[in-house]
Amino acid sequence: MVKILADIDKFFNPKSIAVIGAAREPGKVGYSILDSLRKGFSGKIYPINPFADRILGLQAYKNLANVKEAIDLAVVAVPKKAVITVLKDCARKKIKNIVLITSGYSEIGDSKGEMELLKILKKAKTRFIGPNCLGIFDSYSQVDTLFLPEEKLARPKQGGISFISQSGAFGSALLDLIASEGIGVSKFISYGNQAGLKDVDFLEYLGEDEKTKVIVCYIEGVSDGRKFMNIAKRISAKKPVIVFKAGKTEKGAIAAASHTGSLAGSYDVYKAAFKQSGVLEASSIEDIFDFAKALEMQKPAKGKRVAVVTNGGGFGVITADAIAEAGLELAGFSNESIKSLGKILPEYGRVHNPLDLVGDADKERYRQSLDILVRDKNVDGIIVVALLQTISLQPEIVDIVAEAKNKAEKPIVVCSTGGDYTKKYLAEFEKKGVPAFITPERAVKAMWALVKYGEVLGKF
Amino acid sequence: MVKILADIDKFFNPKSIAVIGAAREPGKVGYSILDSLRKGFSGKIYPINPFADRILGLQAYKNLANVKEAIDLAVVAVPKKAVITVLKDCARKKIKNIVLITSGYSEIGDSKGEMELLKILKKAKTRFIGPNCLGIFDSYSQVDTLFLPEEKLARPKQGGISFISQSGAFGSALLDLIASEGIGVSKFISYGNQAGLKDVDFLEYLGEDEKTKVIVCYIEGVSDGRKFMNIAKRISAKKPVIVFKAGKTEKGAIAAASHTGSLAGSYDVYKAAFKQSGVLEASSIEDIFDFAKALEMQKPAKGKRVAVVTNGGGFGVITADAIAEAGLELAGFSNESIKSLGKILPEYGRVHNPLDLVGDADKERYRQSLDILVRDKNVDGIIVVALLQTISLQPEIVDIVAEAKNKAEKPIVVCSTGGDYTKKYLAEFEKKGVPAFITPERAVKAMWALVKYGEVLGKF
Repeated sequence: MVKILADIDKFFNPKSIAVIGAAREPGKVGYSILDSLRKGFSGKIYPINPFADRILGLQAYKNLANVKEAIDLAVVAVPKKAVITVLKDCARKKIKNIVLITSGYSEIGDSKGEMELLKILKKAKTRFIGPNCLGIFDSYSQVDTLFLPEEKLARPKQGGISFISQSGAFGSALLDLIASEGIGVSKFISYGNQAGLKDVDFLEYLGEDEKTKVIVCYIEGVSDGRKFMNIAKRISAKKPVIVFKAGKTEKGAIAAASHTGSLAGSYDVYKAAFKQSGVLEASSIEDIFDFAKALEMQKPAKGKRVAVVTNGGGFGVITADAIAEAGLELAGFSNESIKSLGKILPEYGRVHNPLDLVGDADKERYRQSLDILVRDKNVDGIIVVALLQTISLQPEIVDIVAEAKNKAEKPIVVCSTGGDYTKKYLAEFEKKGVPAFITPERAVKAMWALVKYGEVLGKF
Repeated sequence: MVKILADIDKFFNPKSIAVIGAAREPGKVGYSILDSLRKGFSGKIYPINPFADRILGLQAYKNLANVKEAIDLAVVAVPKKAVITVLKDCARKKIKNIVLITSGYSEIGDSKGEMELLKILKKAKTRFIGPNCLGIFDSYSQVDTLFLPEEKLARPKQGGISFISQSGAFGSALLDLIASEGIGVSKFISYGNQAGLKDVDFLEYLGEDEKTKVIVCYIEGVSDGRKFMNIAKRISAKKPVIVFKAGKTEKGAIAAASHTGSLAGSYDVYKAAFKQSGVLEASSIEDIFDFAKALEMQKPAKGKRVAVVTNGGGFGVITADAIAEAGLELAGFSNESIKSLGKILPEYGRVHNPLDLVGDADKERYRQSLDILVRDKNVDGIIVVALLQTISLQPEIVDIVAEAKNKAEKPIVVCSTGGDYTKKYLAEFEKKGVPAFITPERAVKAMWALVKYGEVLGKF
């Protein structure tokens, strides 16, 4: 690994962490960070607080100098007026990685203050994230600098999706949403004003990170457009990069300028650059995690001809509409498939795509049709609409689709629309590695991402 | 009420119901219907089954003739070959309302068979729903002919939204989804092949029905375009009509022809007709219930100038984008508001729309800004983004927004993005009558519906 990437890795895998500004009072930032860290991180934690002996059961230190051992990472959450002193302490202590949570710099117009920090940090050759950020979360090492209490913001389980977010609030809310959907995450990075390490550095790092299978970026503006796109292009050849761009409209861009100070730039330029560099653009929050989930669980498609299997005719119609609107195609089944499918449908059934297995379809009818469609060379991907409310469809449909998915050289996604009973099985599908969606529109968009990424990889 | 509407009302408010084809075996359609009915319906239920004395604890009858009392409604779920005989029995018994569940008629090409039924029913002057349908559900009378077992498909609580669905599977899955979201429903109608009563009849009926505040229609094609639009236009003047049209694309239309036999017709013609008749078109499943929920809970807007209040800057940017994309406008605050808002923001805060209350905003900061925006004449609607993960924002934000909503002459909707903790509060908002959404995009679309319906009512 290149040096800068190895250095970034130390943020996620430190042996010891100092929390400077660790607070004793619940509800304070410095308390929350310490609390998040001590719950999972197995390395040594040093709370630094001039007035405390112990915090949250851990021995506290009046200042950094009192800590005899080496410290790999400092998380700084002190009031702005104390930051300079703290950074100098860190330099003396030879701490090479700092997450600076404190805000009140360039984001509110104090670029001069930010430059001062930068000078100290550069001189000490410190790598740092922030200021004005939430910092990082790593589901494996459990380094967790988010000051949002776990009872309000759940941490996701281990998995292959990693996030870079220019907005801390956006990124963390998404993390929380993802956790509640049972989706796994590797790393999360809120980089704030990116005075030190920048979006492009993290992007590059995640491109190399073996635990990261899919990268998601929330950006308002990027630090260096050309560099970002070049890196994204290189990474896209081995793992998908999904970007959600905020500040797309004129009014949104104005809001972005006021929020992160980003010059959002022309959205058309971004759009063209995304396309050219193989970045998949998510156009809504739901897109982000639908795309990420599908791409983590599924192989990309080798073409855009999609088969739809359903036990509800109306859902077939809606799915067909969504496929056309997404620029995908309904596959024309091979003659062989048409013949075989004809045999498994009830006498009044008709072989079309969408394939309506009719309301009384049971798991066997699904198994047989999936068998046929998995083999059909005219089909590049399959959307299985399985309405679980019917009397006939058994819960074993989950295993049947999972088997088909494991066997298939093409992606399979599921749509099951419904309430609590259905939602339980959506989770079951995903436990077996099949991405499952609550509406046909979302299943189609996920398929779109799988097709698009197949195209990026040059599969068709 | 016009006679036909009074007749339709008898489907929803019968004193007695016969279930013809009531079955003893769980898993059969005739069993599920009886089971659904007996759980809530307080009138008399007569299971008809030639081989049973009792079913599900109810006395059963060998045939209709054995029932001495008058019967208001028959639900027929017998095999196709027995339907003619059963309908004749119903005629003799002078049953004036029939729901015919049995399928296998025009939807699979047997229009002749359907004509035969029609002849008998017309002669007996019977009003009927079907064939090939799920029938009806009424949350108040608990008439429930859906053969989808309650453990798989939850029934929603009482409320003001009513549905007409050309697709039984679609309608019922939506009903289930709505139930799980805690949204209330008045009536649900799956009319199948509409050989007897048609979409237009139900639409007109729901227009008159006092328990129905918002009407939702799923259509692939309508029985009589001009009539449908005329009725919709008349109803729209007093309550919102939301339509989800399937079969919009060429491929979707082909699928629709194969599903309900509907000639979907040109989508452009539909679209123009919807617009002209004041119908709000939902373009996704999520739209349907987001629109319905917002319109049931909120007053329509008197203009399209929207204020956004947020404690997460990134969410402000995304919301601003979504507002522009939806054709709404960001309100320009009045000078008075700007002055007052300036006083409640922290010193580094800036008064813009979206109004960023900054990450440390507490409920008081929200209360004060809502107070100002509710009074601002330049603001037609308010989107409150409340990220509940922060340390500072207390759960009482729910009461604060609810109070503002009750006071305001303009609609207020909420967006809170997050996991389980947040979702709990989304439900709390709605219990207090404030429509709440998990993403800014969905909150904006709901606001769009409120603005659009205000326009339909001529409010601006």
